Amino acid sequence: MQKIDIHTHILPKDIPDWKGQFGYGGFIRLDHYRPCCARMLRDDGKSFRDIEENCWSPHRRIEEMDEAGIGLQVLSTVPVMFSYWAKPTDATEVARYLNDDIAEAVGEFPLRFAGLGTVPLQDTDAAIRELERCRASGLLGVQIGTNVNQLNLGEDRFFEFFKACEELGMAVFVHPWEMMGEQDMRKYWLPWLVGMPAETSRAICSLIFSGTLEKLPNLRICFAHGGGSFPSTVGRIDHGFDVRPDLCAIDNQVKPSSYFGRIYFDSLVHEPKMLEYLISIAGADHVALGSDYPFPLGEAKPGEMIESMGLDESTKELLLRGAALRWLGADESGLWFAN
Amino acid sequence: MQKIDIHTHILPKDIPDWKGQFGYGGFIRLDHYRPCCARMLRDDGKSFRDIEENCWSPHRRIEEMDEAGIGLQVLSTVPVMFSYWAKPTDATEVARYLNDDIAEAVGEFPLRFAGLGTVPLQDTDAAIRELERCRASGLLGVQIGTNVNQLNLGEDRFFEFFKACEELGMAVFVHPWEMMGEQDMRKYWLPWLVGMPAETSRAICSLIFSGTLEKLPNLRICFAHGGGSFPSTVGRIDHGFDVRPDLCAIDNQVKPSSYFGRIYFDSLVHEPKMLEYLISIAGADHVALGSDYPFPLGEAKPGEMIESMGLDESTKELLLRGAALRWLGADESGLWFAN
Repeated sequence: MQKIDIHTHILPKDIPDWKGQFGYGGFIRLDHYRPCCARMLRDDGKSFRDIEENCWSPHRRIEEMDEAGIGLQVLSTVPVMFSYWAKPTDATEVARYLNDDIAEAVGEFPLRFAGLGTVPLQDTDAAIRELERCRASGLLGVQIGTNVNQLNLGEDRFFEFFKACEELGMAVFVHPWEMMGEQDMRKYWLPWLVGMPAETSRAICSLIFSGTLEKLPNLRICFAHGGGSFPSTVGRIDHGFDVRPDLCAIDNQVKPSSYFGRIYFDSLVHEPKMLEYLISIAGADHVALGSDYPFPLGEAKPGEMIESMGLDESTKELLLRGAALRWLGADESGLWFAN
Repeated sequence: MQKIDIHTHILPKDIPDWKGQFGYGGFIRLDHYRPCCARMLRDDGKSFRDIEENCWSPHRRIEEMDEAGIGLQVLSTVPVMFSYWAKPTDATEVARYLNDDIAEAVGEFPLRFAGLGTVPLQDTDAAIRELERCRASGLLGVQIGTNVNQLNLGEDRFFEFFKACEELGMAVFVHPWEMMGEQDMRKYWLPWLVGMPAETSRAICSLIFSGTLEKLPNLRICFAHGGGSFPSTVGRIDHGFDVRPDLCAIDNQVKPSSYFGRIYFDSLVHEPKMLEYLISIAGADHVALGSDYPFPLGEAKPGEMIESMGLDESTKELLLRGAALRWLGADESGLWFAN
């Protein structure tokens, strides 16, 4: 079986000088200081993260996929590139550049890569236009952040975007970024370890409580890092919904846990017992292998934990491949990336 | 077996006019608009929460404890009363008033109540003085917030306080408050449903990564709501610690999950499978029944979920009583509140 990894990040090898082009800063640039390595720099010169060739080179990625037995990677940009804070026309240009790079990798290796685009969500119309363009260029969906300039995804202004995703059959991958509490927990990587799981729960809750998911029953949507803290706190969330409908059930009267079996999660929880819990509550057909490749907080050998858990074959097949196909809207028979 | 409920909140029936007394606002007052009911009001007149007689009357609480088979409640104030933002001398006066009320209930019904005080953590010396006073008045520990004016609990300035708790044998209960992200998720009660679990994880992480827990091996510390999102995301947290020691292991080189078996949690996760996970990872002797009585987000019948899970008798005994005794530093033989 060729495994599918739905949570992987990629960047173009070269990034334009957007600060110079747009006349204001805040963007990321790459400093290729050695042949295999680059620094992601904020355009004020501050280092954000060191990356290696596998972050931009499809060829290098395929070598590593072959080593790990990954048949197909779903590519998405690095969330720091979302640029929701920029002017919409500029963010559109950023998105197009990133999306074209992903579409090129998919076009070159259609059996090894599927792609998710990024969209300028600060302008719903522009986001929908870029969504359509992504679809036309062969991408299967989009990756979006858990908030858009701290606005929640359930806000009315984003509804038409999600509706377009449903209508166009584009999968949605929700990834945490601009983490709540970041300014108050700078030490110990806590925005990544504490803020990210909270961001993802916030996004799921907002999409449920606002009624967005209820109104769009065919939206295929997946949440990173096993849904963050949502699955483990759903008992509390359901209970809140039950005891304070005046606060929680104002826009949607459906119990939050009802959405298990509809929403997808990647498998990246790093703890076998927690993954068992996630499978038990979300269904193995809605939990898809995701590794956060090629970043260190991800699973170094994608799929290793799933394969080590002694799961039965059908559950394993769902986690390693079946759930991903369902979420992407593909099936084995008509699979353009069949193995 | 007489169950012990370690997570219950109580207020004095009457609250002084602290705004008038101190000359600035931000405090809570009570409006007893009906014999059995009161409104908690912010002193700008905004309603915070409606409460009933069981929030202030020991007699009413004992009636409800008898109905639920609760032998002993551990009393603590409502986190909105912490007043860490106030002037230290004023916050000390607030704490004394609240603590005297709890000590009075404990003194009147020593077989039914144990007490946790509150301390003015914005001033470590004042907090230690009030801690000593709490101990002298018969309280067994203190309840503190997950942050102090957005400072993390692992900050150096709080170390002497935790050290004093260890030295005096005072148990510590950490409860979320002033939730991260609150200003950006006002709808749907999300500060309570998303922010609180994140706050608790932040507190645990800060106390671990800073080395506070490592330096104080005999500190008995317990975290509300099953530790929030910490236990479910510990795989991610451990992995972060492993792959980015330059960020995570700068002040403490011990793996975060190593602290399971030392830190305590209440049982309030509202989901049997999640509670099973918590027990499996934290140990039944470190998970103690907590209900959040008398608030609606708590367990309406304290202990009901634990009793419904088909756990073996020894596990159940630990959850319903044994873990609480260990955390409080009491044992059955010398129990002043023996049943």
